[in-house]
Amino acid sequence: MPKIVNHDKRMNQIAEAMWRVILDKGMEGATVRNIAEEAGLSLGALRHYFKNQDDLLVYAMTLVKERATERIETVAKQDLPPKEMVMAVLFEIVPVNEQSLVEMEVWFAFMAYVKHRRAELNIPDDGIFTGVHKLIAYLASSDLLKEGLDLDLEAERLYAVVDGIAIHALFGADRLQSERVKQTLRYHIDSICVS
Amino acid sequence: MPKIVNHDKRMNQIAEAMWRVILDKGMEGATVRNIAEEAGLSLGALRHYFKNQDDLLVYAMTLVKERATERIETVAKQDLPPKEMVMAVLFEIVPVNEQSLVEMEVWFAFMAYVKHRRAELNIPDDGIFTGVHKLIAYLASSDLLKEGLDLDLEAERLYAVVDGIAIHALFGADRLQSERVKQTLRYHIDSICVS
Repeated sequence: MPKIVNHDKRMNQIAEAMWRVILDKGMEGATVRNIAEEAGLSLGALRHYFKNQDDLLVYAMTLVKERATERIETVAKQDLPPKEMVMAVLFEIVPVNEQSLVEMEVWFAFMAYVKHRRAELNIPDDGIFTGVHKLIAYLASSDLLKEGLDLDLEAERLYAVVDGIAIHALFGADRLQSERVKQTLRYHIDSICVS
Repeated sequence: MPKIVNHDKRMNQIAEAMWRVILDKGMEGATVRNIAEEAGLSLGALRHYFKNQDDLLVYAMTLVKERATERIETVAKQDLPPKEMVMAVLFEIVPVNEQSLVEMEVWFAFMAYVKHRRAELNIPDDGIFTGVHKLIAYLASSDLLKEGLDLDLEAERLYAVVDGIAIHALFGADRLQSERVKQTLRYHIDSICVS
């Protein structure tokens, strides 16, 4: 079915063009016209794939999430000790390289833009809240957590640490470089694990 | 000098009108025209106080910061035990009531909007990074911190926890209500303090 494959591929190319426009001009510059130009398509051709900006927005957000999920699944297949596995997954969520910084910036711009429009749009959840619960449960079942911790509050706290660091890496990339991001996350996980 | 007082008061009224427009329509709706209408002024009258949207933007952000700083200074004057003082200051930073939720939403919309324009604009720093360092230093000098902690990484981690929770309270107000926000922050501070 080469036609369908090409159709998906073209939709991804358009979504990636939208990311680049957002990175360059911010969300307010991400008009259908600018996105078509960046993708090297006519407005009519773009509308063949996405009937309006909202369709494209939801697709482009979903693609950010899918790319991150793929990377995390690749990490999860590696043969790592439990604590290192948790660290490796966390390093795929927070921005520690060019690719994840781009994804974070695009996601953040999306979130700010759709804040008032969630009810109208079918916005994908970023999956991080569910993810951190799994990581804490995994550490617990591997007998790595210190005694006396509240697992539910540990998940809430890890969720805050992850997104807080991600925001700071995004807005303060000069100060908070990737080594410092990793160091802070490792410090946090070490603080809740037996040594 | 009643004229100057009225001048400042009018500028604050316009900035507050800008906040309301952002809350209602998002940053993309915060045009000078909409803000003038919300403030009950003509475009010409508004331009008497702010020569363009950027001037108004910087002023309105600075006012958010000033209001939060005033509340924190009021808390700091109270006669509280050190750990309760730290908690009370944190509760003024994260959104746990209608007022701080509004401030957070406006600040977040500002930040997303100015992401690509920092070099052009004189954007105020939110002061939280400096603030969390002071809080950790205060706990340390009050002999309340557990032994063996890395104070610099504790400040980095508290900074992440505070802004991560704030973002989650803003985007997931249905799930993360103010009691849960407070509980998570208290859990975190308890975890680094001697009991």
